[in-house]
This record gives sequence, structure tokens and C-alpha cells, in this order.
Amino acid sequence: MTLTADTSSCAGELDRLAASWRARGAQVVAVQGLGFVGAAVAAAVSSARSADGSPAFFVLGVDLPSASGRARIEAINAGRAPIASPDSSFDELLGEAKRIGNLLATADERAYALADVIVVDVHLDVKDITAPHSAAIDVDIASLRAAIATIGKHMREDALVLIETTVPPGTTVSVVAATLREARAERGIASEPLIAHAYERVMPGPNYIRSIRGYWRSYSGNSAESRMRARGFLSRFINVDEYPLRELDDPNATELAKTLENSYRAANIAFMHEWTRAAESIGVNLFDVVDSIRVRKGTHDNMRYPGFGVGGYCLTKDSLLAQWGLKHLLGSNVELEMTLRALEINRTMPEHTLRLLEEILARPLRGAKVTLLGASYVAGVGDTRNSPSRYFVELLQRADADVRVHDPCVDEWPECPDVPLFADLGLAMHGADAIVLAVGHQEYFSLEPPDLLRLCGGPVAIVDAWNVLNDAKAASLRDAGFRLIGVGKGHWRKRGYHL
Amino acid sequence: MTLTADTSSCAGELDRLAASWRARGAQVVAVQGLGFVGAAVAAAVSSARSADGSPAFFVLGVDLPSASGRARIEAINAGRAPIASPDSSFDELLGEAKRIGNLLATADERAYALADVIVVDVHLDVKDITAPHSAAIDVDIASLRAAIATIGKHMREDALVLIETTVPPGTTVSVVAATLREARAERGIASEPLIAHAYERVMPGPNYIRSIRGYWRSYSGNSAESRMRARGFLSRFINVDEYPLRELDDPNATELAKTLENSYRAANIAFMHEWTRAAESIGVNLFDVVDSIRVRKGTHDNMRYPGFGVGGYCLTKDSLLAQWGLKHLLGSNVELEMTLRALEINRTMPEHTLRLLEEILARPLRGAKVTLLGASYVAGVGDTRNSPSRYFVELLQRADADVRVHDPCVDEWPECPDVPLFADLGLAMHGADAIVLAVGHQEYFSLEPPDLLRLCGGPVAIVDAWNVLNDAKAASLRDAGFRLIGVGKGHWRKRGYHL
Repeated sequence: MTLTADTSSCAGELDRLAASWRARGAQVVAVQGLGFVGAAVAAAVSSARSADGSPAFFVLGVDLPSASGRARIEAINAGRAPIASPDSSFDELLGEAKRIGNLLATADERAYALADVIVVDVHLDVKDITAPHSAAIDVDIASLRAAIATIGKHMREDALVLIETTVPPGTTVSVVAATLREARAERGIASEPLIAHAYERVMPGPNYIRSIRGYWRSYSGNSAESRMRARGFLSRFINVDEYPLRELDDPNATELAKTLENSYRAANIAFMHEWTRAAESIGVNLFDVVDSIRVRKGTHDNMRYPGFGVGGYCLTKDSLLAQWGLKHLLGSNVELEMTLRALEINRTMPEHTLRLLEEILARPLRGAKVTLLGASYVAGVGDTRNSPSRYFVELLQRADADVRVHDPCVDEWPECPDVPLFADLGLAMHGADAIVLAVGHQEYFSLEPPDLLRLCGGPVAIVDAWNVLNDAKAASLRDAGFRLIGVGKGHWRKRGYHL
Repeated sequence: MTLTADTSSCAGELDRLAASWRARGAQVVAVQGLGFVGAAVAAAVSSARSADGSPAFFVLGVDLPSASGRARIEAINAGRAPIASPDSSFDELLGEAKRIGNLLATADERAYALADVIVVDVHLDVKDITAPHSAAIDVDIASLRAAIATIGKHMREDALVLIETTVPPGTTVSVVAATLREARAERGIASEPLIAHAYERVMPGPNYIRSIRGYWRSYSGNSAESRMRARGFLSRFINVDEYPLRELDDPNATELAKTLENSYRAANIAFMHEWTRAAESIGVNLFDVVDSIRVRKGTHDNMRYPGFGVGGYCLTKDSLLAQWGLKHLLGSNVELEMTLRALEINRTMPEHTLRLLEEILARPLRGAKVTLLGASYVAGVGDTRNSPSRYFVELLQRADADVRVHDPCVDEWPECPDVPLFADLGLAMHGADAIVLAVGHQEYFSLEPPDLLRLCGGPVAIVDAWNVLNDAKAASLRDAGFRLIGVGKGHWRKRGYHL
């Protein structure tokens, strides 16, 4: 059976396919939202096999009929990854699903009517991630309500709705349950919907698919049956022998857990920022110090290194979701003061790199040619969401600097459309007054001092905000006339490399 | 050769012993300060052996001629531990050293004149650990100067002075070096003193001695020779095959490292406190949530559990030392804002337990009989320094509550001399209106519900601030008429156990 994007718009065809797969013993799963998480989850679920080797699931990936939604649908139905990923197993799973025919992407919301399990992987955004205090946080809960209402309008009475989206504590029990009840009531369904929450821990990079199939998962549900159904479903595509599932008391607990674990990471990064500034101010190499402390396994081995800033979709917003849910959904008056302060510190980290740039630049920022190396939020991937580079570029633009950007993983930068983005290092770097190393892409680590001299056309100022240059390279560059300064690299300052 | 405390006051005898050990190939080591760290270091150093099995060192432990100093000296010279410790190897090493005669404790400062290596393990206190901001921090640097001056007055010109005391960044290079230079100049010694900094990571409990001999150690020095000498010395009593020494650039780096690693721990505890309050406010069992997150090895497995507070000598002050050194010794204007805020949160953690007590107590605190179980700052040891129990008792006393205290590891509580401290659980608990479980001593974990009912003489209010009672015990106590509330135990509140 061959699937095309066209077949997906034909409800009768969906019915027929679902019935056919069900007759062959497969369960029907709908995945709502085919973004960074949903696309990978759809692929992972499609790869599950029954004991006899046949596909355990027929997966219907559902996205909105928007331009980007349709592009994702077309890619998946063509057996291609809708998102660039260095994990080749993503493409392999999609290719295999296309060959077998057990994964179909569609914009037709009637797909939900066919599903035994509906997995929710839609976005839930905080309207302004720079909210300075708890009262200013605003979560786009209306869009989640709308997505859930669509499910409620079509779902089978006994289907399980499994929320994977990171949501504010209280969302599953209040928002999701209430919305489903209301939509089902309009259809004359009075029974309590089966709802589970099992947050994902999907990581970009080479272990993208493995972070779904071979990693820890916690879950909870709104009833004993929901929990049992969730456990059964998750057990079929997660390696639960190595990573046993963990059941928590209720959705408030799993929702709090997800936002807590990302907040912990964000706070540990923020904590290091003031020690970074301290180390720089007294001539200490903080990378070396952190390495010397991280030998303490189990207590200190996750200590963060100095850096440029924090970006991405999760660490920048999950704490805000937590605070909002506590306050607006659960009536708690607890303020996550240290947590929110940590986010604020992380947001403003690039300002520190700007100060280093100002210090080392032998001229005013206005009109200075500054080349930023790295636009994505993390090394090795092209994801630019909430990237600290974006904020840094804004700061440079406000100072009327002449900014150029290079990133080997980024073809276009939707958040910064007006910044010249170069694919060629030489074009980006030649003639610059200063180079800022902002992301630890492999291509930058492989640059040797003669490369830098050649690419820049002469010695310039370098700000290393990501520990890209080791001390040997720094000494060699210094000898060649470069001036160097680095985040966390107090020892360079002590040696006068910035003068 | 038999040693007694008396011989220690005879300089001629010290000379003779040192010369005799030196003739047998041993180096002479003086340890300044025989407190919690120095006593254990003296014992560990005395246990080092040369290749032929003979003692590598003759150790002179030096303390002040105060009452407590003399008590420590006498204990060590009698082959007994001067500090109660559950680590039997401490007593064994001291007994062995007494038998062999290569460890002698003395109040005679002329001992420093005999040493090849002088290890500094004196206290360096922050005058008020509740300093609310950086400008209010005051470090008793004068007492360190005095201790170092005593060494400078007597030391051999080429002896190595190795600082193990946790000191503010900048201390070794400025305070210690300057003080030694001055004292040596008065003796006509113009050469630069050999100084190293190699901070200890001594931990109380069953691995007390192992935390010296079998654990990671970083070091630095003020010259190549200092570093070489420090490395040689440390290599002889530390298991460097398993725990290779780590050299950092300079003493500023090692000093910053020590204060950073303890600040990290303190900040991670403080971070959890607001999530503890959040979990309680929404009915979530935070212990369960933390367990579910700690499966993420290498990034989240050091997440702290909810608790009663932070005490001890290190986590309560090391951040303050760091801030003070940055500002007053190194001229840095960096404020360790998040770090100092974390200390403030940790200091006031017991107030949260007090609020839980007020919530569950069916009567005003004034005149209420409250029994506090646990006075030490950590489970299994009798160390009460800066214990959160002390602060909690102060809060109770201010509220005119009738406080009784029990601790199986504490015989006397010098910081709280006016509080009735019971050795007998029944005497402490009988007739109480409320019990507060504040420390996780083993004796408390073994209490079963019938024990609690018998000891209290009936059902009372219980505040579990240290996760001493599991859910099965809590349910059983609840059935017996107890009212229960617990730090981080939102699920008890959800179940109405506090009503």
C-alpha cells in the first residue's frame, strides 16, 4: 500500500487503513503535533514491533494545515525527516515506516476519531520569556485548550489521551480534563476521559531517537485505567527492561517533575555565571578549576562550565510554566524566586560577552566589524530557538556595530532575518575587527592559528565565549599579534593576552 | 621510646626525637591545629610508610595551650581520638602511632623549628555567618595572621608551609606570604618562603580518614619548588595511584575551587527549598519526584532532597570567605549574589519547619511542649556546629515554647546550654504536644508506630523534617490518631494527615 500526502486528506481512506491495520493486530495511535518532539515520537512509535515481528502500531501524525504543518506532513509521507538531525536513525525509521506503510501524516483532524491512543506533542509557549517576575508570566494556554478541544470533538470514548507536551503543573487535571469533558459532553459522552501525562526528554543531536526509545520515562494518569493504559503503551516502544518506567502519584507530580528538572539545569548554569565573572576578575582559569571539582562523582560532576548563554525551547521557559501553573492553576502562592532569578541571569549572560568585546576592541562598537561565529543555541545542531546569539546580535545592533554571522549548521535564521548570515567562513571573517566564538561547533574547534590569520586577513581581537581555543592556540595567536579574551579565562587576562 | 604529654613541653626532648627520626630517614612534619581536620591529617600523615616499611614521617601535632587544645594534645598522646568519630580507623592510626612513637602532640610552638613541612589546619572563621550582604562579611583574618606569624618566627628557612585551611581567595599569596616574609625578615631571612595551598575535603562519618588518604586532592604553590615539594609530600600519604593529584595554576585558583565546590552544594540545597514549598502547596510528594529525576546520571543525580536546613562548618561559611577574599584581598567588584542568597535561604530553612509545626499544632506555640529529635547538623555524627536545630530552638524559645531535645550522638550542646538535652527518648518525648524529626539518625528510622505511641504516651502532632517516616508508618500513625505533616511531603497534606 502506497501513501501520499493526497491520501491523507481522504477520511474514507484513513478509515480503511486504520481498519486494515487493526485487523492485523495493530493499535491505532494519533500524534498531535509533528514538531521537534512529535515527529520523532511518531517515528519511534511506528518502529515498535509485536512479538511476531509485525508493526505494533499504525501511526497517524496530525499537524495543522498551515504552510509549515503541510511541509512536515509532506516530508514524513515521503519518508524524509521534517527536521534536520544528525541522528541518521530518524531518517531510517521514517524510510522503514514509509516502506511498511504504518505511518501516515495528515492535516485531517478526523484522524483522532480512529485512534486508541492520542499523543499530544503540541507546543505550549510562554508569551514573553523575559517576564521579569511571576505576575508578568503569560502562558498561551488557549492554544492548548483549542488543540485538546479538537481531540475531544473526535476521539473515541475510551481512547487514551497521553500528554507529552511540557505543561504547567495542574494542566492535565484542570485544563485538559475540563476541555475534554466539555467537548465530549457536547457529543453526549458523559464518562470521564482517560488522560495520562508522560513528559518526553527528547534531546537534539546524535541520540535524538534514542532519547525517546532508550531513556527514562515517568508517567501518571487521572485514573487507575489511564495509568495502566499509559504503562502498556509506553512499554511497547521504550526499552523498559533497561529503563523501567516510573509511575508518579498524579499528573501534578509529573508536571512538576519536568519543569523542576529543567529548572535545575538552568539554575546550575546561572550559578556558574557569577563565579565566571569572579574567576575572570582575579586571573583564574575557571575551566581548569571546574575540571578539578568535577572529579567528585555524584555530588559535583555536573557542575557547569563558563559559557555564552542558554537558549533552546526548554531551559528558557519551563520554569516560567511552573510558576504560572502553581499560581494560576493550583492556587499556590509559592514564588520560585531563585529559579526565576536564574532564568534572568541566563538571559543576560551574552551581555557579559559584550562587555569583554568592548574591553578588547581597540575602537568604539559603533561601526566596528564584528563577526559572530555561531547562531544556534547548542553545538552541532542548527536549532536557533531562543539562541543567546540572537540576543547578542540585538545588543550589537543597538550599539550600531556592523555584524556578520556564520554558522555551519544554520542555513537561515528566522529570528534574525536582517543579519548577514554567511555559509563561507572567509567571507564572514575577512576584514573583521573582532571575532566572537559563541558556539562550540566542531568546525570552529578545528581552526588552527594559521587558518584564523588567513581567514581574518591579519591579527584581530578574539572573544572566546565557548572555550573553543585551547591555551596552546591562544599563545600562538597572541604571538601572531591577536588580542584574546575569553569567558571564564581569567588566566588569559593575567597573562595580558587582552592588551 | 614512650611519649607523654609532659615530654612535649620539653624542647630539648623534641629536638632529640626529631633528630632521631630524621636519622632514620623520616621527614619531620608539624601540623598546626588539631581540630576536626588537623587531628585526622596528623594521624593520616603518621601512617605513611617508606618503601622499607618504616614510618615516612615524624609528626608533631601543635595546638594552643588552651583547655581544649590541651585536651586534644593529651588525647592524641594517649593514642585516643580527640574527637568522637564513627570511623574506627582514626583510633587505630592513633594507637599505632603511639606504639611506634612517630606522632607527638604538643603546645610548644618551637616544634615548628624542627619541621620540613608545616601543615596549617587552623580554623578561619567568619565573624557572623548571617551577614546579609557582601559588605557585612567580616573574616577573622587576624587570627590566621597570628598563627602564620608563629610559624614564621620559628620555621626553617627552607621548610614548606602547606595551607589546608579553607581560606578566602587571595589569602595564600597576600596574607600568608606577607606574614611569613615579615616574620622571617625579623630573623634576617630574606629568601621567599615556600608556600603551597592544598585544601582538604575531610568528611565526618565512617570515611573520615579515607576522605584524606583515599580521595581527590588539588594543590598549588607560590613557586615551582613549592609545587614540587607539595606534590612530593602529598604523594606519600594520599593514594595518588587511584586519586591522582591535580595541580592548579596558583593559590588563587585552589582557594577559589574550594569555596566554589562548597558553594555549589549550598546553592543546590537552597534551590530545592522553594520547590519543596511548591510541592507541599500542591499536594506532591517531592521525594518521589526527586527520585524520578535523579535517574538522569551525570546531570541530575545530585539533586537534593527536601530537608530541615544546612549546618556544619563549611557550607555555612565558605561562600562568605569567597566573597570577602574577592573584595578585600583581590580587589574584585564581583558580587556572588545568587551564592549569598542561597546561604540566606539555607539559614532560614528551619523557619519553614516552624510554620509546619504551627499549622499542625492544635494550640498556640506559647507553652506548647515541643520535642526536637536531633541536634547535630548531619545524621550519624555528634557535630552541632551551626546546626539548623540550634536556630530552630531559638525560634521556639522566642515563641515561649517548652522545648526538649534528644540526640543519640550529642552528649552536650555547647551552643544551646540552656536547653534540656535528654539521652533517653522516653523522657524527651513523653507528654509532648508535638515531635519534630529534625535529623535522620538511625535510631529515629528504627522507631515503629507502636514505639512512638508508647514513647509519647498517646497520639501527638508530628513534623517530619527529614523524611524519617515512610508512608506505611505515616498511615499507621494516622490510624492511631497522630496528626502528621512533613517537609516535602505534599501527599500527606493531600491525604489530610495534618487535620
